[in-house]
Amino acid sequence: MKSARPAGSGEEALIAEYFRPLATHPGALGLIDDAALLSPPDGYDLVLTKDAVVGGVHFFVDDPPEAIARKSLRVNLSDLAAKGAAPAGFLLALALPETVSPEWLGAFAKALGEDADAYACPLLGGDTVRSPGPLMISITAFGTLPRGTMVHRRGAEVGDHVFVTGTIGDAALGLRLRKEGHSSQAWQLEESAREHLHSRYLVPQPRNALAQAVRTDASAAMDVSDGLAGDLQKLCDASGVAAQIDVASVPLSPAARAVLHADPAAIDTILTGGDDYEILCTVAPERSAEFSRAAGIAGVPVSEIGRMVAGQGTAFIALDGRPLTFARASFSHF
Amino acid sequence: MKSARPAGSGEEALIAEYFRPLATHPGALGLIDDAALLSPPDGYDLVLTKDAVVGGVHFFVDDPPEAIARKSLRVNLSDLAAKGAAPAGFLLALALPETVSPEWLGAFAKALGEDADAYACPLLGGDTVRSPGPLMISITAFGTLPRGTMVHRRGAEVGDHVFVTGTIGDAALGLRLRKEGHSSQAWQLEESAREHLHSRYLVPQPRNALAQAVRTDASAAMDVSDGLAGDLQKLCDASGVAAQIDVASVPLSPAARAVLHADPAAIDTILTGGDDYEILCTVAPERSAEFSRAAGIAGVPVSEIGRMVAGQGTAFIALDGRPLTFARASFSHF
Repeated sequence: MKSARPAGSGEEALIAEYFRPLATHPGALGLIDDAALLSPPDGYDLVLTKDAVVGGVHFFVDDPPEAIARKSLRVNLSDLAAKGAAPAGFLLALALPETVSPEWLGAFAKALGEDADAYACPLLGGDTVRSPGPLMISITAFGTLPRGTMVHRRGAEVGDHVFVTGTIGDAALGLRLRKEGHSSQAWQLEESAREHLHSRYLVPQPRNALAQAVRTDASAAMDVSDGLAGDLQKLCDASGVAAQIDVASVPLSPAARAVLHADPAAIDTILTGGDDYEILCTVAPERSAEFSRAAGIAGVPVSEIGRMVAGQGTAFIALDGRPLTFARASFSHF
Repeated sequence: MKSARPAGSGEEALIAEYFRPLATHPGALGLIDDAALLSPPDGYDLVLTKDAVVGGVHFFVDDPPEAIARKSLRVNLSDLAAKGAAPAGFLLALALPETVSPEWLGAFAKALGEDADAYACPLLGGDTVRSPGPLMISITAFGTLPRGTMVHRRGAEVGDHVFVTGTIGDAALGLRLRKEGHSSQAWQLEESAREHLHSRYLVPQPRNALAQAVRTDASAAMDVSDGLAGDLQKLCDASGVAAQIDVASVPLSPAARAVLHADPAAIDTILTGGDDYEILCTVAPERSAEFSRAAGIAGVPVSEIGRMVAGQGTAFIALDGRPLTFARASFSHF
């Protein structure tokens, strides 16, 4: 169902102008072939991840193009990091509504190229299509690691320590600030705290610097994208064990602490809200010290938040010793 | 920007019900991990292709779900075939509007699974998201081949023979039938001819059976998706040579011949309309006989349609010895 536009494909002109400058990897073949080429080293596996983001669902359509570009790539980089893989490149499918301007595309492509450089994850190819619907960005990212060393969700064992990177809940609070202006009044946040939460929602900071430590030391890992509580439940289900989490140990930013001080019920948002893009992993007790040390060298803050125990399910134990219950364990678009 | 739905992720339930049955490859990890795993044999390259299709742009929203499923995978399989690669698996990103029913999804997934089996291209993973826009299917497919043997668009040399598989123009005529009911009257086609053209638009028949012959014998290759004339031009540009095509040698189905008999101007649609998903390749003269023989063994009809010559551009020479000119060389959505 193709539109009868004048000759001289606009798609190729668009790709040439905005995306060819990013295609510096030899496997991209200058974006002029039907396919891209990846030559993993002998003895290596390829880790494949594909996260799509849709305007009005995963980001606000008036978010800056730079932020949308970075988020669309980084949610995939976060998956690679959690599996212990080093980025090898990505493919980009862009569904563009008519309303997208050349300026918007230029800013989007520039930021995407900067992130591709920063994370050593070059653009290898892709597809650009028109859509009557919202902007959609579907990225497939590739990582490599020595054969058989990918860290799975399954693999956690009773007694393992549970770690998370960075801080939890910032992005979900940032989203609430954005959607519910009134909260920002009730929470009485300073401007710098509001900005911190906003930026954590807008632009994830994937933990690729920790990938090697995860691969070396973790028994199971995943990234936290749909909320710590729900994602931990998935890891427990895959591993056939349970988790007991000490809520007071869950790492919070000063901004999240300020929110919690004004509104204790916000703990629900913090633990189930998602969009954290931190790494959740389990580490055998005898490897925990080594893992913490490696994380320190990598410059990634990690916190031990609980233990894997026998049974099913997860328990988040509050300061008063009672388990928290949540309105829902994780967000879902369905 | 996540919606506050009840707990118990609908995405996981949906994936479990419709797509987990397809995830039989060990690298899919049962679709319960963040990533998939591919272990190419040592000494092999990975060929990556990503073609997205959008409802109302690349297919009609009321097309049968089985046809949409097959088309979305096969346009990618066609790229792999043209590069000489054997399918290794695919990732699926689905953006689903609210209007998609369980019955629709069931039929879509079943057909996708049948094609995955038929082409030995297993589902490895993916992402399912809600969209306020039209259905969009973004597939990334992977192929493998011995290192350094991918067939590029560049590589054609002066004197090479130009081949295409199957027949050209059927899908574009089928699309015109679908969009311009009146043509079907003017063209006075029999029902079987109309059905042939319709089905060629609806469900491509990628030429994966020819991949090995392409890899062994072709100097350059691509699949014909945007029209023979425009795609040949791209191959010429990439190779730095020109092509001279004998229009009378371009293989046509009986249905396309019938259209052309009633409406000679339809040659423009046939040669520039696209959606053929046939392979266009160039073969050195001394390898042409071997290539034709290998194609015969593979059961794929191939036709020699012209020669590569020095210079730039393409010439389609009609029976009267004069070059055809086209309203546009190929379709573009932009």
